[in-house]
Amino acid sequence: MDEKRQAGTSLASVGEFGLIGRLAQAWQGAAPCGIAHGNLGGLSPVIPPEGLRLGIGDDAAVIDVPGGKPLLVTTDMLVEGVHFLWSPERRRLLGRKALAVNISDIAAMGGVPAWAFLSIGVPAGANVEEVEELYAGMGEMAARFGVALAGGDTVRSDKWVINVTLLGLATKAPIGRSGGRPGDLILVTGTVGDSAAGLHLLLSEESMMAAGKGASESNEAHISEADRQALLLRHLDPTPRVAEAMALVVHGGVTAMMDVSDGVSSEVHHLCRNAGCGARIDLANLPISPAARRLARREGREVFAWALSGGEDYELIFTAPEERVPGLIDHVRRETGTDVTVIGRLTDGAAGIMAVYPAEKGGEAVPLAAKGYNHFR
Amino acid sequence: MDEKRQAGTSLASVGEFGLIGRLAQAWQGAAPCGIAHGNLGGLSPVIPPEGLRLGIGDDAAVIDVPGGKPLLVTTDMLVEGVHFLWSPERRRLLGRKALAVNISDIAAMGGVPAWAFLSIGVPAGANVEEVEELYAGMGEMAARFGVALAGGDTVRSDKWVINVTLLGLATKAPIGRSGGRPGDLILVTGTVGDSAAGLHLLLSEESMMAAGKGASESNEAHISEADRQALLLRHLDPTPRVAEAMALVVHGGVTAMMDVSDGVSSEVHHLCRNAGCGARIDLANLPISPAARRLARREGREVFAWALSGGEDYELIFTAPEERVPGLIDHVRRETGTDVTVIGRLTDGAAGIMAVYPAEKGGEAVPLAAKGYNHFR
Repeated sequence: MDEKRQAGTSLASVGEFGLIGRLAQAWQGAAPCGIAHGNLGGLSPVIPPEGLRLGIGDDAAVIDVPGGKPLLVTTDMLVEGVHFLWSPERRRLLGRKALAVNISDIAAMGGVPAWAFLSIGVPAGANVEEVEELYAGMGEMAARFGVALAGGDTVRSDKWVINVTLLGLATKAPIGRSGGRPGDLILVTGTVGDSAAGLHLLLSEESMMAAGKGASESNEAHISEADRQALLLRHLDPTPRVAEAMALVVHGGVTAMMDVSDGVSSEVHHLCRNAGCGARIDLANLPISPAARRLARREGREVFAWALSGGEDYELIFTAPEERVPGLIDHVRRETGTDVTVIGRLTDGAAGIMAVYPAEKGGEAVPLAAKGYNHFR
Repeated sequence: MDEKRQAGTSLASVGEFGLIGRLAQAWQGAAPCGIAHGNLGGLSPVIPPEGLRLGIGDDAAVIDVPGGKPLLVTTDMLVEGVHFLWSPERRRLLGRKALAVNISDIAAMGGVPAWAFLSIGVPAGANVEEVEELYAGMGEMAARFGVALAGGDTVRSDKWVINVTLLGLATKAPIGRSGGRPGDLILVTGTVGDSAAGLHLLLSEESMMAAGKGASESNEAHISEADRQALLLRHLDPTPRVAEAMALVVHGGVTAMMDVSDGVSSEVHHLCRNAGCGARIDLANLPISPAARRLARREGREVFAWALSGGEDYELIFTAPEERVPGLIDHVRRETGTDVTVIGRLTDGAAGIMAVYPAEKGGEAVPLAAKGYNHFR
């Protein structure tokens, strides 16, 4: 066995974001001075590495193609048993979601998705129809948002692995995470926490099934079928907010934007860290669906936890100066039918990142933990 | 268990290329008419899907960014246990090679590599230093060819998984696989078969080790250390032919080009299929290194098999009209020091794809089997 493995630094001790930072350094350490012209046979290369306007650490990279519009690129890897279970009923939904989460990243930069590259690892015992169902699901999502399948790789592996790289183009200037300023309001599209509620339902139904009881015998039987379906679909079949992002870009005034993939808490921390700001989030203002509230009440769960830390809502969270906010909210609702809600405000960095409880829960302001989903803890 | 799995079409029965075709159809079947404008909130999208000039089936996709140079994109997934073993001595080399094979794809289109996106699946028990070594290897290769790390994803998985998506820019017009015409000569850079010879050495040394004998007791002890190192490095640390590709592009006259990743046989079949041509390959002319010849002789192996079917040489194979060939060969040698060899000629499609044995082996012409490496057979 590999003894060095025991002696080294555990992934859990540095966490996902710590790891990313160290890896960028490992790469950089080996890359002293850009292009080695000697290796190009004396020909000077066409593109300077400066084409990379925005690299690691946002929803998508921004590349300035000489003479062209800024290119947006995002990539995501999904592994069976870690990110999904490979079940016959859900292959098509899995395909849809695998592309949707990448489309969401492009939208969160203010861009339009365009070209997808798919690498999939397929177990030797799988059959062609299984892979086709996955692709058909991706194709449905692609058709809805005008994405072309442009390339990929198909390899053998023990477990299913899906890697999507999606390219898009910025419509106007790409919107990063770092443009927020103290005083800007923080807004979110749609509702947050539904995906976590749906996951909760899914897991409890599955454990009921495993215990030999039908879903109808579980606690969830007390939830209306409409609530159940709505919450499950928010988790299994999220809709990327491309139309809302376009409406925001066209209206103008957005200073920073991300999608809610890890949870509102985690995303607020990103927006603050990148801008050197603090924040106050009013928990009473979090847009939480009646269905999620009902489920939380019946399960004895804290609905704020789902909204703040659940993640995978794929809503847009963004900041804008206060005077632009009413117009933005109106414009998005008119163009897309989607509600946009003010959930807080960026503050001076020294004020920290605080969550304010609703008056009926005491109205206390407490530090907001950045407990989004972290793959290595 | 999943009963449909038994009833479906096995991957082995369609093969890797058959699967790719069916998947493209599954995707297309779901994508009736490009962009659904309704989903973009009434805003017409910035890019038409027609930007995709060349999709699945070449070394890299070609995308026409509005106003910009053609973008080249390639992606490759490597899985532990299928494509590599995760050993402490070879992590850095693995990182180098994972990037090198993608750089080779960009070079094979006549482009310059630029921006890399890395997704890696990391086992829970791994430590940070292991991942850093992998990245450091990639960084070395990146520095050599001016590639910037532009983004990626880091996830947990059972086995190590490495997915590289590499973007580059075409220098002049991208060079695809379909431009060859009957009468064009077929040429290859450097030598072919060394990587397969290196893999043979590696596997026999490893089986010796497993049997408790040192490498020095094995047959390979009869090979000079210089030969051994040269062949192992061709397999473990390939150099993408970026400089040679640039020299070819600058000189002009190349009608079709690929890299030799699956083996000369397989690549010749690709060049012929895409152009509707046949081919005659003169086995006597295959550029095979003295080291590979010596190893084949001592091992009682057919050196042509390594050259034709071994793959992973990452040389360039290309076609050009006969009158341009002397100038091309001279130019590449002068600019890069690399030899280029004529190995055959494209013929009329009806003539088939034939291999001609050397005179001392009878001079017979036999159909050339397309037995490159295929992941699912």
